[in-house]
Amino acid sequence: MHVVVPFDGREPKTRLSPVLDIEERREFARAMLEDVASTIESVGFEPTILATSDVDCEWPVVVDERTLDAAVNDRLAEIDGPVAIVMADLALATPDALGRLFAAGGDVVLAPGRGGGTNAIVARHPDFRVDYHDASITDHREIAHDIGAEMAEVDSFRLASDVDDPADLAEVLLHGEGRAAAWLREHGFELASEAGRVSIER
Amino acid sequence: MHVVVPFDGREPKTRLSPVLDIEERREFARAMLEDVASTIESVGFEPTILATSDVDCEWPVVVDERTLDAAVNDRLAEIDGPVAIVMADLALATPDALGRLFAAGGDVVLAPGRGGGTNAIVARHPDFRVDYHDASITDHREIAHDIGAEMAEVDSFRLASDVDDPADLAEVLLHGEGRAAAWLREHGFELASEAGRVSIER
Repeated sequence: MHVVVPFDGREPKTRLSPVLDIEERREFARAMLEDVASTIESVGFEPTILATSDVDCEWPVVVDERTLDAAVNDRLAEIDGPVAIVMADLALATPDALGRLFAAGGDVVLAPGRGGGTNAIVARHPDFRVDYHDASITDHREIAHDIGAEMAEVDSFRLASDVDDPADLAEVLLHGEGRAAAWLREHGFELASEAGRVSIER
Repeated sequence: MHVVVPFDGREPKTRLSPVLDIEERREFARAMLEDVASTIESVGFEPTILATSDVDCEWPVVVDERTLDAAVNDRLAEIDGPVAIVMADLALATPDALGRLFAAGGDVVLAPGRGGGTNAIVARHPDFRVDYHDASITDHREIAHDIGAEMAEVDSFRLASDVDDPADLAEVLLHGEGRAAAWLREHGFELASEAGRVSIER
């Protein structure tokens, strides 16, 4: 199975601007990418990084400057056989969680993200295409249904937890075990508690 | 195994006040309780509702007006053998997700909630006690460690998704299959999309 990891190395993680400057966001996004790619490797697959600009890393890189949908759908059209698409900001992903994704049966396997997103996909049906706008999990369920694909979902908190907002950094500190969690600690982030909810402080 | 479901029937879900009045919050909380309790039954266990005031329902009710920690720890001390504690607001819980929780090995099994919470626990060690304040998942890991209990965690988006804030209602509309999702639809809630994120409108 081909495993594709879309990655924006230029202007990554803009919603983290309140707590990280552009250079920090690039470093942190890169740490998350390395966590995700090495976790994919640890369960026996080689990731290909599908990047908006060239990335200097140990994995094969395909550069595609178009939108996420256009770039991913091009890969889906070009590659014969099963393709997995795993987002580069799943800083909580573990070998167990990705192993469950890759092992799940079905023509189309979806890992929902919090807030209606789709954080990982296994596509074993040649007609499946992505549409990442808005509530993409609803769209992907419909697309799978419309092409007559057998659909399955993987129920994983770790795969549901993409890192977009400052509040998501608390999840990385609470549950992350890799480079991204280490990067946050090295850069002064720690858990805080305000009004009974967990947040971060620096 | 005894399965205890803590439930506040008096002032439930105060953080939903911006979108639901007190009577609606009681009805909605009750719908979630019924979803959780009937899902527990569907995988072969009888839930006991541990409530702050009497609840008229088809399941056994134990009334305990004290804090959540005091009430749950009393049950843990009194009951011989394994005890599961499952929060009443897991409106996304499915038989599969709860089945994985109950089947997981370990003296203490934790299902993390978003934001550092602990949404479900299986305690097979007589000395385990709960502490639900702040980042309770961290406390529960420490408590399990301190009593020498073998600890496991269940990785489930559905069990991680407790319903506290208006934003959580979007998850119920996106993924819920029970009374709580139906209640929201009957009361005029639907998914909306603002600035690329999914929210709710009424």
